[in-house]
Amino acid sequence: ARRCGRIADSRAFDVVIVVVIGANAVVLGVETYPHLGSFRPLLHVLEWIFRVVFVVEIAIRVGAHGRRPQDFFRHGWNVFDFAVIAAAFIPGLHGDSTALRIVRIARVLRLVRFSPGLRTIVTALLRSLPGVGGFLALALVTLYVYGMAGWLIFHDDFPDQYGTIGRAVLTLFVLLSQETLPDLIEQGMSVSQWTLVYYISYVLITANLLLNILIAVIVNSMEE
Amino acid sequence: ARRCGRIADSRAFDVVIVVVIGANAVVLGVETYPHLGSFRPLLHVLEWIFRVVFVVEIAIRVGAHGRRPQDFFRHGWNVFDFAVIAAAFIPGLHGDSTALRIVRIARVLRLVRFSPGLRTIVTALLRSLPGVGGFLALALVTLYVYGMAGWLIFHDDFPDQYGTIGRAVLTLFVLLSQETLPDLIEQGMSVSQWTLVYYISYVLITANLLLNILIAVIVNSMEE
Amino acid sequence: ARRCGRIADSRAFDVVIVVVIGANAVVLGVETYPHLGSFRPLLHVLEWIFRVVFVVEIAIRVGAHGRRPQDFFRHGWNVFDFAVIAAAFIPGLHGDSTALRIVRIARVLRLVRFSPGLRTIVTALLRSLPGVGGFLALALVTLYVYGMAGWLIFHDDFPDQYGTIGRAVLTLFVLLSQETLPDLIEQGMSVSQWTLVYYISYVLITANLLLNILIAVIVNSMEE
Amino acid sequence: ARRCGRIADSRAFDVVIVVVIGANAVVLGVETYPHLGSFRPLLHVLEWIFRVVFVVEIAIRVGAHGRRPQDFFRHGWNVFDFAVIAAAFIPGLHGDSTALRIVRIARVLRLVRFSPGLRTIVTALLRSLPGVGGFLALALVTLYVYGMAGWLIFHDDFPDQYGTIGRAVLTLFVLLSQETLPDLIEQGMSVSQWTLVYYISYVLITANLLLNILIAVIVNSMEE
Ligand code: NA
Ligand code: NA
Repeated sequence: ARRCGRIADSRAFDVVIVVVIGANAVVLGVETYPHLGSFRPLLHVLEWIFRVVFVVEIAIRVGAHGRRPQDFFRHGWNVFDFAVIAAAFIPGLHGDSTALRIVRIARVLRLVRFSPGLRTIVTALLRSLPGVGGFLALALVTLYVYGMAGWLIFHDDFPDQYGTIGRAVLTLFVLLSQETLPDLIEQGMSVSQWTLVYYISYVLITANLLLNILIAVIVNSMEE
Repeated sequence: ARRCGRIADSRAFDVVIVVVIGANAVVLGVETYPHLGSFRPLLHVLEWIFRVVFVVEIAIRVGAHGRRPQDFFRHGWNVFDFAVIAAAFIPGLHGDSTALRIVRIARVLRLVRFSPGLRTIVTALLRSLPGVGGFLALALVTLYVYGMAGWLIFHDDFPDQYGTIGRAVLTLFVLLSQETLPDLIEQGMSVSQWTLVYYISYVLITANLLLNILIAVIVNSMEE
Repeated sequence: ARRCGRIADSRAFDVVIVVVIGANAVVLGVETYPHLGSFRPLLHVLEWIFRVVFVVEIAIRVGAHGRRPQDFFRHGWNVFDFAVIAAAFIPGLHGDSTALRIVRIARVLRLVRFSPGLRTIVTALLRSLPGVGGFLALALVTLYVYGMAGWLIFHDDFPDQYGTIGRAVLTLFVLLSQETLPDLIEQGMSVSQWTLVYYISYVLITANLLLNILIAVIVNSMEE
Repeated sequence: ARRCGRIADSRAFDVVIVVVIGANAVVLGVETYPHLGSFRPLLHVLEWIFRVVFVVEIAIRVGAHGRRPQDFFRHGWNVFDFAVIAAAFIPGLHGDSTALRIVRIARVLRLVRFSPGLRTIVTALLRSLPGVGGFLALALVTLYVYGMAGWLIFHDDFPDQYGTIGRAVLTLFVLLSQETLPDLIEQGMSVSQWTLVYYISYVLITANLLLNILIAVIVNSMEE
């Protein structure tokens, strides 16, 4: 147990695992290219090497807890690691199945655990979310009200964009990027000049104001 | 009156009303989908349940003022609540009329009242507006001057974009999103290379500078 | 002189002039619409009323300096006011000439003078420019170097975008808005995959980094 | 040596060199225009004048180190200056060769050295990079994971956008500009409505959140 603990706490251990996770990511990337030919068997061997390394990694980290291996599962990241690595051995997951690919991609997320910087950022991001709840609620209410108004105004003329509340909200979400602004304004002008009030107020309130306030609040709460 | 007061101040009362407003919003959304078939009568029943709940809500809140029910109308939000809920009973508003739909959508805005966070944000936003009045005035003067200049330069060549001051200002407002920049520059170049001075200065001054200063000033005044 | 001084310093005087400048702006806007018919003579009369009001305004403000009317011209804004108002009387400027229109539009800029808020903002903006000189120089050097590099790489294949340093810099300026990014990347990929390095580095360095740093520096120096 | 030192430290020396570098930049720009005709020989002469001035400049700056000219090469900028100026004399680089053009464009970068402001900004930018390493790593991991997920979902249907991990990451990088959002969402909807989860989460997390946090962190570390 002590030996396991010493290994698990060593910097070399972390470096090796990070390098193997990186190699795992590269192999997954290489596999997306067609016409690999004689490389395929090599990639297959590498995948098995990764599995062995990750199983040994988990074994050492579990072993570091000595007589109380169940303590290993107290930390969220450990549970994630175990689940992601064990899942590759579920019978029925073979070769090129999508499920196995998802499991193998999920392993790359383990990188976050090994970088204190990354971990801090992710934690800070998640912690800042409740503080911006009011703004998110305001954004959702605004999107909903503009969506219903858009449906009322346009659902007969432009069913593709405003036929249901779902489509209307999607149209307005995409409009946050301002990409579709020229087309939508022209489309609206063909119905009535008053639709300008709808689009101009929407773009000013959401794309320019709410979105930037939301981003500023999250960025500020990140900095603390 | 005391009993009404106790109910109106209780957290349960707020939660019930917020949930009913949320359900009201969902029902309005569901109604935008065609082919509802046998669901229609159910939605109709739900709308009547909402009306009853909201009328009872107002009655309790008015009742909480005891012998001086007119005090209820001293707060802006109370007046809004009363108007929005009473409007549904105006004779002539029936079934699928647009006017009734607007009244029912307006009810969703009552959510703002029940969320202290939302209320603070909306109040802060409205309060920050006078402080940015100078910037808004500068933005409007800039838009107007560029609009008149655009009309002078382009109204013969491109009447769709610059035929009147109204169209010119609309063209320049949409250009704030920079979506139409490549097309407008190409269009301008076909008149004269000097139109580049017009478009480049406009984009630098308004889309990059004024818009971001305005957003930063509002965001900062929000944070305080 | 004293009486002129009292008038010139009074709030009512400012309000009257601001209202007349605003009416002047509205009349200029109305004139851009065709088919005015019987309104034209009225607009012509209004223009002459504006001229009279503005001449009287200048006369009062000059008169306020008593025996030393030349002091009036010590302030930049006064010189601007005088030039803009006197220019309308230059013989040869008649009716619908563009030159006269420009003079009349320039009058609207006088609004800035009457709003202390606007004046502060414009002064702050102009004062912040030297402080950002380093960033502007960096932006120009970057634009120039990428422009020369773009000309070297693409001038044979895409003369419309990169045929001369002028066109290359214009292409890269428009690319700051990221509007043309998908098309340019596709165009570049048809030459070589390595052009990705050119476009990705350009967008990351300028559109994302330099532009935002420049805006942040100006916004910050504005706030002080 | 003393005389060289006095010249090299004088403000006039810097001004002359900056002006010559600027002239060098202008000549390079002029050369990109076709049909120069009789100007070509003049540009050729100017290029030789620039070379002479730069060689004399280096000679003076080396000479300022007196008996230990090798000290000149201790500063990175001096090495860059020497390399860029000496490279123009490599035999085989002639006339309009691209290699010589690159060398001549590289000379323009020497401007950074002569502007303390520019130098400070470039140094600050480079210094801020390690501090944002965590965010860059998070951005890369996010891009990779979304890239692999995009490949899994779309590689059969849209090989042009998601055929390999390389194309998928490029598609997602361009999507950071939100230019391609409307088209990609429509494309995705033709596969399944669930692809909305993919695109909406990607745009919210990366284009709106990560990108702005990254920019804010760099801008903040620049300001210090
Ligand atoms: Na855009
Ligand atoms: Na865009």
